Amino acid sequence: MSNSNQATETKSSIVITPEALLEHWQGHRKLTRKMIAVFPEDKLFSYSVGGMRPFSELVLEMLGMAVPGVKGVITGNWQKLNELPAHLKKAAPTTKTELLDRWDEATEALNVLWPQIPPHRFLETDTAFGQWEGPGYFFIFYWIDNEIHHRGQAYVYLRSLNIEPPAFWDRY
Amino acid sequence: MSNSNQATETKSSIVITPEALLEHWQGHRKLTRKMIAVFPEDKLFSYSVGGMRPFSELVLEMLGMAVPGVKGVITGNWQKLNELPAHLKKAAPTTKTELLDRWDEATEALNVLWPQIPPHRFLETDTAFGQWEGPGYFFIFYWIDNEIHHRGQAYVYLRSLNIEPPAFWDRY
Repeated sequence: MSNSNQATETKSSIVITPEALLEHWQGHRKLTRKMIAVFPEDKLFSYSVGGMRPFSELVLEMLGMAVPGVKGVITGNWQKLNELPAHLKKAAPTTKTELLDRWDEATEALNVLWPQIPPHRFLETDTAFGQWEGPGYFFIFYWIDNEIHHRGQAYVYLRSLNIEPPAFWDRY
Repeated sequence: MSNSNQATETKSSIVITPEALLEHWQGHRKLTRKMIAVFPEDKLFSYSVGGMRPFSELVLEMLGMAVPGVKGVITGNWQKLNELPAHLKKAAPTTKTELLDRWDEATEALNVLWPQIPPHRFLETDTAFGQWEGPGYFFIFYWIDNEIHHRGQAYVYLRSLNIEPPAFWDRY
């Protein structure tokens, strides 16, 4: 088998490119942003079904994983937001606008950081945040899946408040 | 640049292999199975929050996408379960055992079908079920994401019934 054939065969088994995976995630993040935007502000920080966390806390969990996580995939250094030096720590948002601003900051940061992921890091095994062992793609999928999971929870919150959520496929 | 370098560079930008993506999906499907198993049988087919569908209907939606969808990715022929010839159509399950059996059949079928996906089909554009245009990976991610989304909804159903759901990371 020639090198040329090897290259062709390798290329043909690509499931998704790094660029497309970022687009996929940012599409989901656009939908999550719409969910924040449509959530009544007073309910965003307090409303719960079945004793579960309010949507704002779920959103903060997503934010705590996304940018710090991608930095970890890039560098191999894993730093939780709440372990940052005091002068770099931000207080939790208390308004919808603040939460949306925090979301938009992360959107920009992800776009800047993503192309800095060394390609081999997607398949390379590491220990995320000193706790979870797996390949880079596993962590990234976990953060995306966790966002979908908790956002699905927020769909029920909204429906139980008689508010129509944005369509699941509406990621534009 | 030599062909050898091209092969190396192409390989190094692989985000996830087809085999790992199946394992990822089946891990999620194991968690969804645990959710079905822990759901009280009478609530499985009737319980709702906010006027949303019972969990059994969400599970049937997942089943309606998974095997027919992967067959479509493999062959380019897209056939919905409810468009099958009458003698091949199955009545909707009415017990938890039937629903779990249906789930397990799909698990086996996915394991058999998956390796038959021609590698180029992940990036090739098609029109899934005659309705949605996109590359193969986009459809597969959609089916996985849709399962996570609706399962997240079922987490709220369980919590509101005072039942502890399996942990989100428990996909084994």
